[in-house]
Amino acid sequence: MTHIDIPADSEFGIDNLPYGIFSTPGTDARVGVRYGNNVIDLSAALNDPDFSSSSLNAFMARGRSRWVEVRESVTAMIVSGTTPAEAIVSVSDVTMHLPFEVADYVDFYASEHHASNLGRLFRPDAEPLLPNWKHLPVAYHGRAGTVVVSGADVRRPCGQRKAPDEASPTFGPSRRLDIEAEMGFVVGVPADGPISPDEFSEHVFGAVIVNDWSARDIQAWEYVPLGPNLGKSFATSISPWVVPLLALEQARTSTPVQDPEPLEYLRESRSWALDIDLTVAWNGHVVSHPPYSAMYWSPAQMLAHETVNGATSRTGDLFASGTISGPEKNQRGAFIELTWGGAEPVSLGADTRTFLEDGDEVVIAASAPGPNGSRIGFGDVRGRILSA
Amino acid sequence: MTHIDIPADSEFGIDNLPYGIFSTPGTDARVGVRYGNNVIDLSAALNDPDFSSSSLNAFMARGRSRWVEVRESVTAMIVSGTTPAEAIVSVSDVTMHLPFEVADYVDFYASEHHASNLGRLFRPDAEPLLPNWKHLPVAYHGRAGTVVVSGADVRRPCGQRKAPDEASPTFGPSRRLDIEAEMGFVVGVPADGPISPDEFSEHVFGAVIVNDWSARDIQAWEYVPLGPNLGKSFATSISPWVVPLLALEQARTSTPVQDPEPLEYLRESRSWALDIDLTVAWNGHVVSHPPYSAMYWSPAQMLAHETVNGATSRTGDLFASGTISGPEKNQRGAFIELTWGGAEPVSLGADTRTFLEDGDEVVIAASAPGPNGSRIGFGDVRGRILSA
Repeated sequence: MTHIDIPADSEFGIDNLPYGIFSTPGTDARVGVRYGNNVIDLSAALNDPDFSSSSLNAFMARGRSRWVEVRESVTAMIVSGTTPAEAIVSVSDVTMHLPFEVADYVDFYASEHHASNLGRLFRPDAEPLLPNWKHLPVAYHGRAGTVVVSGADVRRPCGQRKAPDEASPTFGPSRRLDIEAEMGFVVGVPADGPISPDEFSEHVFGAVIVNDWSARDIQAWEYVPLGPNLGKSFATSISPWVVPLLALEQARTSTPVQDPEPLEYLRESRSWALDIDLTVAWNGHVVSHPPYSAMYWSPAQMLAHETVNGATSRTGDLFASGTISGPEKNQRGAFIELTWGGAEPVSLGADTRTFLEDGDEVVIAASAPGPNGSRIGFGDVRGRILSA
Repeated sequence: MTHIDIPADSEFGIDNLPYGIFSTPGTDARVGVRYGNNVIDLSAALNDPDFSSSSLNAFMARGRSRWVEVRESVTAMIVSGTTPAEAIVSVSDVTMHLPFEVADYVDFYASEHHASNLGRLFRPDAEPLLPNWKHLPVAYHGRAGTVVVSGADVRRPCGQRKAPDEASPTFGPSRRLDIEAEMGFVVGVPADGPISPDEFSEHVFGAVIVNDWSARDIQAWEYVPLGPNLGKSFATSISPWVVPLLALEQARTSTPVQDPEPLEYLRESRSWALDIDLTVAWNGHVVSHPPYSAMYWSPAQMLAHETVNGATSRTGDLFASGTISGPEKNQRGAFIELTWGGAEPVSLGADTRTFLEDGDEVVIAASAPGPNGSRIGFGDVRGRILSA
């Protein structure tokens, strides 16, 4: 019987209640819910073996009615002050782990501003937006095995790089190491085939922040014609707290006008576009404010597209939005855009930067509107660059 | 104490001994070794819980010394006629299952003939081979969750297709459904980073035949700039028997001359190029004989490239070669090449075909040289097309 204190301005209030996998020294990783500056240990608070697991997969696979039920139980426990004392752990005492086992990882390219900027930078002599871009949410599969949790260091990758003025490629550490600030969505309930936009919330459990680390020099040399591979596959970081879709009702908004009108299978009765504000901090200096609400394609459209060919979905499938960039320069979610290919360095206090240097740290945070003026926090995803 | 009969010309002789996952009616799936027309049930013949598993992953993770040990035990058991009678099951009585849980799936593009042919077909106004192609084994990540075992039906995918003379895309069943005849390799022992070509056989357990079903119309519209996605992600079939690398020593050969010389990290002391002959049968008619020995990049070079950026590897990582095509027309491993984009139909007895029709069946078989004139069979990978 314990009342849990919470700061008045916490982004982890009663309307959020995100899930994660945590441990304390000498204990096994297990499922917790964040409330304020505490973690509620669900393995101690609720009688369900799903919560003694070291991943959210088992719980996520149960489906929406169970997600609602547990959310209501946790809410009631907090409100009534009946959380068992032994189930309350300070966030400062926990280590967070990868919240789910990633099945397949798909990365989209759903920001018109980002796709246009990258088109100008990678293909300066052509139309920035390719002919297919407004007809379908372009995506590729990434490496599921190198998705890591926030806080994991990222070693600068080596690979083949060839500048346009070089005759042949050389091997060595990437000289243009970058980030991509994205939102990611995780499938809970598997499917044997297409998931229509209106079935989105029956299958998708929640959302995390994603940093899709990118080695631009490796990517530029390798990516034609089969897409990005080693320029991305060394590491992708995600935030440790999975915010359930159930907490994002107030964040729902509309996509920008989609013209041409998407084909039937991409139409939503009510859009899952989301009003999420991100901030990107580079060595402690906020350099960008990417607005997720500016994304051209909604996450429900992304999943509908990814499965319309009959591809099955598994619990733990992660799909990310692609870099979130808004129309303004200080809304660009990748440094290659922010510094225009390295031509326009950004100031970090007394320092300037174009791409990432060894020892640099990037922290991407996000939050969304909740009920009654509250904010729903996603926490942050952070990573520091180690030398090659 | 049982001697096992075997046909004199069997490609599953004492020098092969591939592993698979099988079941008989009413029993759980478990590990078997194929010998002639029988399966030796390792869960009954050897005292090791790894063999009661419904995937090869646990055994594959043990590493090369254990792989050698078990191979020697099975060989001794067969040669000495001491296989327990209850461990011998006729292949005609078993159902084969997916042999391993696929972690990440990567598909290469390692045939110069295939890449050149596809370049001519997809980009008729440009150089067929792109500038990076002879410097690195180009690859992309595919969908691990839709890798299926031989025999699984393949439903014709729907998706967006736009012919060059159409103003905008339409949605519907693929009209250019194709195959890609490939060889695939599976990682047994995980790695924290780069796997050099000379470490290949410490990490890679064995090989399977792969059919990378491809919807060419969907692929052509979607693949720029991030590579193939829905044109491939609906299904990839693999053969049920994993031939261990230990059985492929006599199949080792050299790659074609690689010019320019590959960068240091791609050089092999002794090549893992393999002399494997494939046949592609379409509705019972053999239409192609793709020679794996013609591949430009060896599988050890592929894995070295895929991990040189520091990407970790997991047990069950599957990487495939990409379509195997030789220099001759009857050596092309994809129908888009064989029929030159549909312009030159092939004869199947009284029928002709350009792309796959509903009800068509494709069977890809493969074998390699073994000791003393024997052949090492991979069996086959088969699939039938269901209507959309």
